[in-house]
Amino acid sequence: MDIEEFRKRGYETIDRICKYYQDLEKYDVLSKVKPGYLKEVLPKEAPEEPEPWENIQSDIETKIIPGITHWQSPNFFAYFPANSSFPSILGDMYSDMFNVIGFNWLSSPACTELESIVLDWMGKLVGLDQKFSSDGKGGGVIQGTASEATLVTLLAARYRVLEEYKAKGADEEKLRTISTRLIAYGSDQTHISFKKATMITYTRFRALSTDNNFSLCGETVKQEIEKDIANGLIPFYIVGTIGTTNSAAIDKITDIVDAIKGTNIWLHIDAAYAGSALICPEYKYLLEGINQADSFNFNMHKGLLTNFDCSCLWIKEREYLIGALSTNPDYLKNSASESGMVLDFRDWQIPLGRRFRALKIWFVLRTYGAKGLREHVMKGHKLADRFKNEIQQHPDLFVIPIIPNFGLVNFYVKSNNSSKNSNELTEMVYNRLNESGKVFLTQTEMRGQNIIRFAPGSPLTTERHIDQACELLLKITQEVLCDINLNNVENF
Amino acid sequence: MDIEEFRKRGYETIDRICKYYQDLEKYDVLSKVKPGYLKEVLPKEAPEEPEPWENIQSDIETKIIPGITHWQSPNFFAYFPANSSFPSILGDMYSDMFNVIGFNWLSSPACTELESIVLDWMGKLVGLDQKFSSDGKGGGVIQGTASEATLVTLLAARYRVLEEYKAKGADEEKLRTISTRLIAYGSDQTHISFKKATMITYTRFRALSTDNNFSLCGETVKQEIEKDIANGLIPFYIVGTIGTTNSAAIDKITDIVDAIKGTNIWLHIDAAYAGSALICPEYKYLLEGINQADSFNFNMHKGLLTNFDCSCLWIKEREYLIGALSTNPDYLKNSASESGMVLDFRDWQIPLGRRFRALKIWFVLRTYGAKGLREHVMKGHKLADRFKNEIQQHPDLFVIPIIPNFGLVNFYVKSNNSSKNSNELTEMVYNRLNESGKVFLTQTEMRGQNIIRFAPGSPLTTERHIDQACELLLKITQEVLCDINLNNVENF
Repeated sequence: MDIEEFRKRGYETIDRICKYYQDLEKYDVLSKVKPGYLKEVLPKEAPEEPEPWENIQSDIETKIIPGITHWQSPNFFAYFPANSSFPSILGDMYSDMFNVIGFNWLSSPACTELESIVLDWMGKLVGLDQKFSSDGKGGGVIQGTASEATLVTLLAARYRVLEEYKAKGADEEKLRTISTRLIAYGSDQTHISFKKATMITYTRFRALSTDNNFSLCGETVKQEIEKDIANGLIPFYIVGTIGTTNSAAIDKITDIVDAIKGTNIWLHIDAAYAGSALICPEYKYLLEGINQADSFNFNMHKGLLTNFDCSCLWIKEREYLIGALSTNPDYLKNSASESGMVLDFRDWQIPLGRRFRALKIWFVLRTYGAKGLREHVMKGHKLADRFKNEIQQHPDLFVIPIIPNFGLVNFYVKSNNSSKNSNELTEMVYNRLNESGKVFLTQTEMRGQNIIRFAPGSPLTTERHIDQACELLLKITQEVLCDINLNNVENF
Repeated sequence: MDIEEFRKRGYETIDRICKYYQDLEKYDVLSKVKPGYLKEVLPKEAPEEPEPWENIQSDIETKIIPGITHWQSPNFFAYFPANSSFPSILGDMYSDMFNVIGFNWLSSPACTELESIVLDWMGKLVGLDQKFSSDGKGGGVIQGTASEATLVTLLAARYRVLEEYKAKGADEEKLRTISTRLIAYGSDQTHISFKKATMITYTRFRALSTDNNFSLCGETVKQEIEKDIANGLIPFYIVGTIGTTNSAAIDKITDIVDAIKGTNIWLHIDAAYAGSALICPEYKYLLEGINQADSFNFNMHKGLLTNFDCSCLWIKEREYLIGALSTNPDYLKNSASESGMVLDFRDWQIPLGRRFRALKIWFVLRTYGAKGLREHVMKGHKLADRFKNEIQQHPDLFVIPIIPNFGLVNFYVKSNNSSKNSNELTEMVYNRLNESGKVFLTQTEMRGQNIIRFAPGSPLTTERHIDQACELLLKITQEVLCDINLNNVENF
């Protein structure tokens, strides 16, 4: 494909993207293909000879699109919103044009410097303490996902605590033994990536119980830590969540800060989804806790119109991150790095190479302005409110077991004189909703109760889509109840 | 930015990409900006109000491009080639259009299924054993970088060895103690990511010494393993490299296979750079060793015209990878996953979310055909040969200390009657080469000798660029020697 063919195909692809967003509503949100569908229609081997672009383009339409679950659809209410935007796509195009691999400063100074700058900008928009900025001992860095942010902060925490033992004279063998006694904490609502990070590092993890609002409390933390220390374990890391995956619950961060005062426990704040809301004045009250943490993370690819992946991590003392992850082979040595005047982000992450992801943040921030992004966040929350208000009109059918936070509405179907219990009904309604192809939602389980999660946030979602979703939910729920009553009559 | 503005800006961006590749030769390869250059010209804060696209576009030209090191330049001979291509850029554009987050099958079946299929295609092109295919117990998966492939295979290996101890009755506490005795091996030429993976997992790593060709030999492995076992350690992982970063050296894989026979040591093959050459008949002789390994990795983003990131990992028994990394929270449960008929790639990697990277592989394979990719690989190797032949015409000036492999030429400057030794001269020549802006090369150090690495491979690089690089090298070397002689005369 030469330059002129690329120009032609590039224009066509831009047009295809435009058409995709124009037509998005027409697609079933959730793909209906069966496992193995693609293998049946693709060749067993790579082609030996080049194929014309037309073949590829038509295969996208006939073979790929049927297997897509349309995350950008206005009727996508599953997981958490994770939306694309046009300036973000343009950012990735420029990133692909340069295709630099920015593992150190020298390999493309703009890649490292723009990342530091836009993360400082974002930190300010959120309201992070100056200590999280790159001007001092801290700084921000783009990770691929919150899972990676979790893992690297856990590594920084382990490094910090082991350095303390080293300073007290522990040798390498002693440190290995000490490492087997390290324990990290989250709550029973903490995202699964924390368990995964402790699996990777082979440290202990304990999920602490939460209160009636599914929040982790300081008192629980204090008690568990004391018990573990008495049993010879070494608490070294705790995660506080702002906006849990199940229900967008908020841990009591300031109480947790008090509970770990005087220890060497690293406090990480996971706001993977909800963090985007912190740019709005409505949520600034959460900053008091956040600003006392060692690290803070949220995903711009959730809620802030930046294409996946774009997980922003800030850390107050980068020396621990770098200490945990730094290696300096001869083939990467260069005078800029040796001077100490530059950051080499390879030492802030698991991979060596990295893409120029700061471009898309820069484009998004400038195209929408802080104001536009705040409006986008609040629009999603308002749509969630609308949904909540509409289903609250039917207290005979639905229960909202927890006050909705950050635009996530959890509900389940009530069991009234039915032969099915609430969990069975909820599961049946959930399955029919997704089978309809009209909407996509996800479910979860909380303390034995099946829950349907409703998380709007696509820029294409309007009040009309919310109302349609409500209507569909009502219709399907009534059908399910009706079918059960019919069955009961038949069985009678 | 609405759809029509995006269409306009999208066309412009396509045109800008075309112009970039047309003009690429005009840019200095290595950026000449000073640390902190960007902070001086960008605002301290994100804009509150939206900005017009023209501002962003002009900032790309004036503020970003000066800070780019041009990896796609025909005069980029540093690190290893990592080249973009037009079909690959189009693949990323489609990926960005869908912006699906394919952590499990359900979240977009096409994302998972196409990845399995194109990895099976690539495995066949390379010549991997059927055991590495997704049809049986194995399969391929795209990782971001070889560093991640390393880490996840190390985790699979640890899982496998600890499961063995568990089967023998070790409880959790015992397993923790056992984990402190685990030791992984590579050579003194192994890529630094292996050391990093053992830092992350807090397992031991030993770099074993290599022979005169910088290859790891079976005998060394056997001796070290025996010694370590006698000392109470538990060898569990070894990496054999095909194409080391320093010199593209090849470890003696079949001998290593013999050396670890009868143990539970996991053999991983790292061919991050050189693996792309395995699609060519000239390199098929290496498959005998590779096919006896537990896992194999190479980067399509090096050498096979696929934009970064795209690191391909194959594994023979995926159950160990999944065992090491699997978590199954309620909020991700779905009937497709529970059926066991689908793969959920989130359990094959560190992150949870993943992009639709298979599209770009699919586009590249079909646009070039296997034939076109083989020609591209061999063209790079031939250009390296041309460079080698040209500098071999000057045995008075340059030494090639190791037979070039896989298109990487290492050399250093000879010291003849000069007041500077060879290392000093090599460093001086190296610095002036890069300061010229005309080329970018990297250096390394091998057994005390400074080495300049020359790694051509950009699709834009032609014989003319090789000849120009040779001329420049000759000119600069002669200038350096002349300056030194002048200084000597002056000092006399």
